[in-house]
Amino acid sequence: GKEYDDEGGLIICRLSDKRRVTISDFRGKTLISIREYYKRDGKELPTAKGISLTPEQWSSFKKNVPAIEKAIKKMESW
Amino acid sequence: GKEYDDEGGLIICRLSDKRRVTISDFRGKTLISIREYYKRDGKELPTAKGISLTPEQWSSFKKNVPAIEKAIKKMESW
Repeated sequence: GKEYDDEGGLIICRLSDKRRVTISDFRGKTLISIREYYKRDGKELPTAKGISLTPEQWSSFKKNVPAIEKAIKKMESW
Repeated sequence: GKEYDDEGGLIICRLSDKRRVTISDFRGKTLISIREYYKRDGKELPTAKGISLTPEQWSSFKKNVPAIEKAIKKMESW
């Protein structure tokens, strides 16, 4: 089953206890967010720690996944 | 040639005029950041708008790229 957050965003995955990747609709525009949440009164609320990408930015990001992988491997081998 | 930011991070790509993906070393740990920058006195400085992932979080994120793609396509077809 799909899981949605308190703002109606679709939760794709959790990167840690507090961090999530979500897809949401903001005024008719799709946003891909990687963001940290905090708990208050039983609700999980978004913090400023995070970023929301437009589909264009996501597309550009995705193309660079192999370059990121390569850079991480190089860095970890230092 | 490789491009580095003012903090020594490797710039992987630019998602917009202000947004970048960088790989940096913070106290011996690799961080993958997606962050917005601003200009002051000719320097580009990082803002709080962004997130820095550990290699473990990055790995978990990467595995979910196909799920993100699928969700975007579904959302855009509404």
